[in-house]
Amino acid sequence: MARFKAHTLVIALALACTGIAYGQSNEPVEPIPYPEAGDPAKIELGKKLFFDPRLSKSGFISCNSCHNLSTGGSDNLATSIGDRWQQGPINSPTVLNSSLNMAQFWDGRAGDLREQAGGPIANPMEMAFTHELAIELLASIPQYVDEFQRVYDKPEITIDEVTDAIAAFEEVLVTPDAPFDLWLKGDETALSDQALAGYQLFKTSGCVACHNGPNLGGRSFQKMGLIEPYQTSNPAEGRVAVTGIDADRFSFKVPTLRNVELTYPYFHDGAVDTLAEAVDIMGRLQLGRHYSDEENAQIVAFLKSLTGKQPEIVLPILPPSSDATPRPTPFED
Amino acid sequence: MARFKAHTLVIALALACTGIAYGQSNEPVEPIPYPEAGDPAKIELGKKLFFDPRLSKSGFISCNSCHNLSTGGSDNLATSIGDRWQQGPINSPTVLNSSLNMAQFWDGRAGDLREQAGGPIANPMEMAFTHELAIELLASIPQYVDEFQRVYDKPEITIDEVTDAIAAFEEVLVTPDAPFDLWLKGDETALSDQALAGYQLFKTSGCVACHNGPNLGGRSFQKMGLIEPYQTSNPAEGRVAVTGIDADRFSFKVPTLRNVELTYPYFHDGAVDTLAEAVDIMGRLQLGRHYSDEENAQIVAFLKSLTGKQPEIVLPILPPSSDATPRPTPFED
Repeated sequence: MARFKAHTLVIALALACTGIAYGQSNEPVEPIPYPEAGDPAKIELGKKLFFDPRLSKSGFISCNSCHNLSTGGSDNLATSIGDRWQQGPINSPTVLNSSLNMAQFWDGRAGDLREQAGGPIANPMEMAFTHELAIELLASIPQYVDEFQRVYDKPEITIDEVTDAIAAFEEVLVTPDAPFDLWLKGDETALSDQALAGYQLFKTSGCVACHNGPNLGGRSFQKMGLIEPYQTSNPAEGRVAVTGIDADRFSFKVPTLRNVELTYPYFHDGAVDTLAEAVDIMGRLQLGRHYSDEENAQIVAFLKSLTGKQPEIVLPILPPSSDATPRPTPFED
Repeated sequence: MARFKAHTLVIALALACTGIAYGQSNEPVEPIPYPEAGDPAKIELGKKLFFDPRLSKSGFISCNSCHNLSTGGSDNLATSIGDRWQQGPINSPTVLNSSLNMAQFWDGRAGDLREQAGGPIANPMEMAFTHELAIELLASIPQYVDEFQRVYDKPEITIDEVTDAIAAFEEVLVTPDAPFDLWLKGDETALSDQALAGYQLFKTSGCVACHNGPNLGGRSFQKMGLIEPYQTSNPAEGRVAVTGIDADRFSFKVPTLRNVELTYPYFHDGAVDTLAEAVDIMGRLQLGRHYSDEENAQIVAFLKSLTGKQPEIVLPILPPSSDATPRPTPFED
């Protein structure tokens, strides 16, 4: 966190010298804000939980397994691998900058990160544990009990504290200072001519209608396959699963484009490996537009300028299980 | 690495003040030495490779999956989970301080860490990749190509550079300054009376005959079940698989006791969850000795004093795949 503060200071000084005011541009995309300070003890506890595979039935899968902070907060798989190697139903969205989304999951079924964090732990396709077992496990580990007591000042751990701590950690997983953000803040050397042309095309051809705001997405649900239907073998139907409204069929939360260079493969089914192909498909299906090779390369160059500073994570050392801690059961029913 | 240097300095100063000379004790156990400096660029490259799940067929399993640096360099499972959730044949040994072992794997079939590192990548039960595919993959990622070129000054990556870099990283994964080491170095307050009594008993009752040296193990192969046979359903036969000599049946490399509080479950089959049970079994089977509850607790207290400073690892940010990078195939044959 100290790192972000140092950056803030440097930039504040730089802006003071150049006379450029932060965030005053009229662009439809805003820079990623620096994370708010937060409670360091809570964030540290949340980091431990995020990396702790004991929150899964197998003792093998942690939040970081599918939202790997070494690989853009995603797993770079079309769909994730869950308990007993089950194939997940949908592409794992990045955890980076996820606090900037209006809702969580592709269909928005969780309103915020706290609500989201409990989902995979108890999902039989993912971590395949239960909230009750997770609490029993944590309560058997003295160092966790002490840390929860320190942070929440309560005698008992409940799933609400667990998800609150995980969410507090996730809220600092933001990636400021992408080349594009530096450009937004007034550094005209931060973008190549090609990337800048790509940004102009991104705006004028309509991508920005959905991919806007600081996260270039995450603000609305939109139909996948607006002009032409999207061909997929993936059975996910999106937002309709939450609302029951037929018009929401194949409507998905618009994904962020932040760090999109790192979060391949693309789309809710993870069927597309490269940015060039993703741009081509989105142009045709959503905008009725065939980008030329040159235009495609420009937009891809712009998208690659959205890779921000990745959070610097010191790997947590997890508190050891006690003799009373239930053991994982990776190979049992 | 700077952290270790700082510690070295502090201890050197402390020793200068107290007049106690480092390493002059006549104990059969020596302190963990600080890691040698090494080539920072090679270590950083090795760290990336250690954490890179793309070295597995599935894109899901990295070295860190089974040698998790958040959990004592082990996976805390009886036997590991490999490609397609295959159950591994043997308990995953800790990577921490593994450079201090005379050989690698339970049966010592790899002479050193370089030889070891190539094994799991190509083992169909583990990462299920091939060395050829691993090289093809790395060669398709421009940032890796640059890093290998910088470190090895060669135009082509081969598996030898891959394992050399991984081993260079593993060589700095040592855990100095356990309470017991501080005691060895002259700090008489570092151990409780109970732990000290445990250490005396550890020596007088014969544990130290095999668990000696800086790693308290890793120096010899010994038969598991010397006085009484060890009951297990695990079919591993140990050293005989390497030597073909019948006398080596059920002979295994003596595991390190460093950080043993973190590396449960115990023994080559991972069948034992607690230190109390492990001490009881080893006393009976290897020494013909039944420790009383008090003696058992003393030895366990000593064993817990062997938990050293865990390496502080900043999670690497992995270079993204390029459009030419082969994609993982977790669900295909």
